Amino acid sequence: MMDKESLAASRFKCSVRERALFEAGIKMGTIYHQFVGTPVNLEGVETLELAMEKSICAQPYIESASIHIDRNVFGKSSDTYSYFSLTGEKIDAIIKVKMDNIIVTAEMRYDPEIGYPLMFVSEVSEL
Amino acid sequence: MMDKESLAASRFKCSVRERALFEAGIKMGTIYHQFVGTPVNLEGVETLELAMEKSICAQPYIESASIHIDRNVFGKSSDTYSYFSLTGEKIDAIIKVKMDNIIVTAEMRYDPEIGYPLMFVSEVSEL
Amino acid sequence: MMDKESLAASRFKCSVRERALFEAGIKMGTIYHQFVGTPVNLEGVETLELAMEKSICAQPYIESASIHIDRNVFGKSSDTYSYFSLTGEKIDAIIKVKMDNIIVTAEMRYDPEIGYPLMFVSEVSEL
Amino acid sequence: MMDKESLAASRFKCSVRERALFEAGIKMGTIYHQFVGTPVNLEGVETLELAMEKSICAQPYIESASIHIDRNVFGKSSDTYSYFSLTGEKIDAIIKVKMDNIIVTAEMRYDPEIGYPLMFVSEVSEL
Repeated sequence: MMDKESLAASRFKCSVRERALFEAGIKMGTIYHQFVGTPVNLEGVETLELAMEKSICAQPYIESASIHIDRNVFGKSSDTYSYFSLTGEKIDAIIKVKMDNIIVTAEMRYDPEIGYPLMFVSEVSEL
Repeated sequence: MMDKESLAASRFKCSVRERALFEAGIKMGTIYHQFVGTPVNLEGVETLELAMEKSICAQPYIESASIHIDRNVFGKSSDTYSYFSLTGEKIDAIIKVKMDNIIVTAEMRYDPEIGYPLMFVSEVSEL
Repeated sequence: MMDKESLAASRFKCSVRERALFEAGIKMGTIYHQFVGTPVNLEGVETLELAMEKSICAQPYIESASIHIDRNVFGKSSDTYSYFSLTGEKIDAIIKVKMDNIIVTAEMRYDPEIGYPLMFVSEVSEL
Repeated sequence: MMDKESLAASRFKCSVRERALFEAGIKMGTIYHQFVGTPVNLEGVETLELAMEKSICAQPYIESASIHIDRNVFGKSSDTYSYFSLTGEKIDAIIKVKMDNIIVTAEMRYDPEIGYPLMFVSEVSEL
């Protein structure tokens, strides 16, 4: 009987290297679309970053995830309506996906030249 | 010049007590619809609970939030595909909203008789 | 045997009027936290508004929901990176919740004076 | 001056073919994590499918998206608590990403052998 990982692999019509790229993309979409909108203030931002990292690391084939949320969004004022609802522009993420001997590094961060929170592949390496 | 809280209050056509109920409902909708779908495993569940509590506590007029995610969803097996995607059924939440001298306690939890993760008001008290 | 609605009602420690306020708050939290982050362009905005309305109308005790997304977010340029990721500031929503003879009208819209997408109760009426 | 698409391309350290795989993964993560949790009933399911398709088609480099939600989740009973909150298991999606002459077809669907809503690459072709 095949294990779940072998079964999953059998569904893919591409190379392991290509699949690692696909898996990296899934993680990027997850970071953005699961967490954008989350209420966050200065008091909770570090815990949210950690929870996002651990959440992404629960997904298959992830090697590491590092998430940083821009603290500049939290104004100086401290009234009731001064918290922030997380946007993609304020997320800085670096993740590594590992499948067999392939490691894909993907990043998401606001790109001021493009004016867009770009998700991109910054490295593909073979061990 | 009015502060933000007074401005916000001026938009409401109901009593403070009624508004506290409305605010409690918002928090319940937030817990469910922001976080359902989040990947989580045994390693990350405590941090996710804490991040959810802090997130809800960033919203206006919240006094406290306590979130518990059912650990039974994490199977014994530890393969790549054995993490869990958070569902409303597995969330147990108690929050308190305070406006002036009114405290509303609202809860969310799977109700086995109804077969539904019910959000309900368990207490309204005046200080 | 009690039906689900009676069972649910038995969990509430508040009046029907107060519960209607709470239910209206849940719907507001749902609109915001389920849909903020959704990719949308001019081609899809009307369908997204309709889908959001129908989604909210699937929830208990809703009488009507009207959602409008600000078209000004769609720039004139039509390149690949010119779509929009839905934010709370661009949503204008009016919903009505009905429980017994109580109708609660709640609204969400960016309030320029407060600088915040405010959710508020604009009317509570008894039939 | 470079246009946004050329700027974005310059950030990638992989081939166009590999990038197309990455972009397909992003779309899969978006479908799942943006829409899981959405309240839906039989009345609204077709509009939700269409809104999801149009939303994914607003993202860069998408050629087509086809989304189907399993109608079996809607029970025969029609009481207030019988709507459904969308889960990944009930989504069936096929998308095509096109970059230059590369077309990647990716699919998501519950895989009964794996017991998991698997996202996979079903074809990579060159025009």
